Amino acid sequence: MYDFSADSADCARAVEAGLSDYLTGASLSGPGPAAERLVAAMRHGSLEGGKRLRPLLVRQAAAIFSVPRQDTLRTGLAVEMVHCYSLIHDDLPAMDDDDMRRGRPTVHRAFDEASAILAGDALLTHAFSILADVQCHADPQVRVRLVAELAAGSGAGGMAGGQMRDIEGEKGGFSETDIAAMQAMKTGALIRASVRMGAILGGADARALSALTAYAEAAGRAFQLADDILDVTASPESMGKATGKDAEAGKQTLVGRLGIEAARKMLDGIVNEALLALRTFGPRADGLRATARYFAARQK
Amino acid sequence: MYDFSADSADCARAVEAGLSDYLTGASLSGPGPAAERLVAAMRHGSLEGGKRLRPLLVRQAAAIFSVPRQDTLRTGLAVEMVHCYSLIHDDLPAMDDDDMRRGRPTVHRAFDEASAILAGDALLTHAFSILADVQCHADPQVRVRLVAELAAGSGAGGMAGGQMRDIEGEKGGFSETDIAAMQAMKTGALIRASVRMGAILGGADARALSALTAYAEAAGRAFQLADDILDVTASPESMGKATGKDAEAGKQTLVGRLGIEAARKMLDGIVNEALLALRTFGPRADGLRATARYFAARQK
Repeated sequence: MYDFSADSADCARAVEAGLSDYLTGASLSGPGPAAERLVAAMRHGSLEGGKRLRPLLVRQAAAIFSVPRQDTLRTGLAVEMVHCYSLIHDDLPAMDDDDMRRGRPTVHRAFDEASAILAGDALLTHAFSILADVQCHADPQVRVRLVAELAAGSGAGGMAGGQMRDIEGEKGGFSETDIAAMQAMKTGALIRASVRMGAILGGADARALSALTAYAEAAGRAFQLADDILDVTASPESMGKATGKDAEAGKQTLVGRLGIEAARKMLDGIVNEALLALRTFGPRADGLRATARYFAARQK
Repeated sequence: MYDFSADSADCARAVEAGLSDYLTGASLSGPGPAAERLVAAMRHGSLEGGKRLRPLLVRQAAAIFSVPRQDTLRTGLAVEMVHCYSLIHDDLPAMDDDDMRRGRPTVHRAFDEASAILAGDALLTHAFSILADVQCHADPQVRVRLVAELAAGSGAGGMAGGQMRDIEGEKGGFSETDIAAMQAMKTGALIRASVRMGAILGGADARALSALTAYAEAAGRAFQLADDILDVTASPESMGKATGKDAEAGKQTLVGRLGIEAARKMLDGIVNEALLALRTFGPRADGLRATARYFAARQK
């Protein structure tokens, strides 16, 4: 039987160790030696913390196709580095202006703004280095598909575009549909890419990829809705970052429109939708099933 | 006989048209539609202007191996998008704090800081989309090599690392060797990557790649030294951006240490070094030769 706690803890440990090994002067050097302060800022923004849910999704999706855990790690590191870069840039004064992240000072507070901008840029850049390398997967055709998938999920029609719309939405005038579309890009696109990259590692056919994409889109919506609920209900201490920020910033969320109780019911419905998308897969999809349920149940 | 003016003008036109075609909602969409404001900011930071020297280097290096011009365009677009992203981020208030670029307001002045950060992020991301796509090159093995090369040139041991060191150098204490090492990363690494990516498109063997790398490293040093000389000698009007900024910012340059005349002599020596690295190539390397000479002679 699938053990979510054990698998997610194992994945988080592997990602932490993998990032710590990779984010060093030796691996990050190019034509010149990696700049020490930049490496330090990249490490500050990536190590010690984070639930590493995106690498877990890569691993769980690949598990459907019996890909060994360790063969999904490099792909997971790439997705996690993109996630970490986005947090570093989102925390900047010109964006969300956050001082704390995961219970520690944000990168621009611990270093400075220029270092935070460059650390985000370099994490994004090296995420693609990892995917292009033969250690990620033996077949270059698979590697270019991973690159394309990660770029689509994190670009103008994905995460970065969603962040842009979120900023525009703070000015008001967003409908519930606009909010849902924005969140599907800002948070959903990288979750979708994670699941699809796991499927690509597993050599999924078009039908399986389509089912897993449906799962991922529902899971992404569940994740975001749970996050919005937690922003209203959880304490800053349990989250390791400021809460109540959405309301304070005038940010439009579904929870704000619907109220907590209706939002919780909606969350259950979305999780069921995610589970339904997995119905053709056997017990090897139990990991993805457990993660969808976790999204609804998590307390931080 | 190779005509530098005609080829560089043709390349600039092709890159301008290529970027204008690519930087649209249609091409940049992912799981969601590309955010309009983000696309507009990306276009502002990429179109109308720029000498497009890096795509020209891709084309000229590939020409040695008889690769048709049009087959180098997508690779050139990717390199140029990385160059443009770096300018957008370098211009930010937390970095060089520039108001003007290519005679127009910088992206954060024309839009706002958040949009400029995201536009840079998205240009970097989509540069890798272009390289991963089959339209770039039919062989996925070539495409992953291009991804790896671009990432190495622009990451922590390349351009981004060089920018970090440049910021550190402003605090003083940099030797001439430190300055040269910083410039080799900040400016040289992407020039090096451009030449090498052209060589990779051409299927260069290890020996040719090594000679072209030597050319590119010398050309990069020539380019940077010429830029530093122009910062002292040229007018803001001819450059379309502020000049004299290096001295004002307390930035360490070789020109500041050596004086203009000694720097000009050094520049001639470096150009000769670049030409020497091409000695085993016939007239098909005339493009690269002309560009090295242009670096030394350019007035803006």
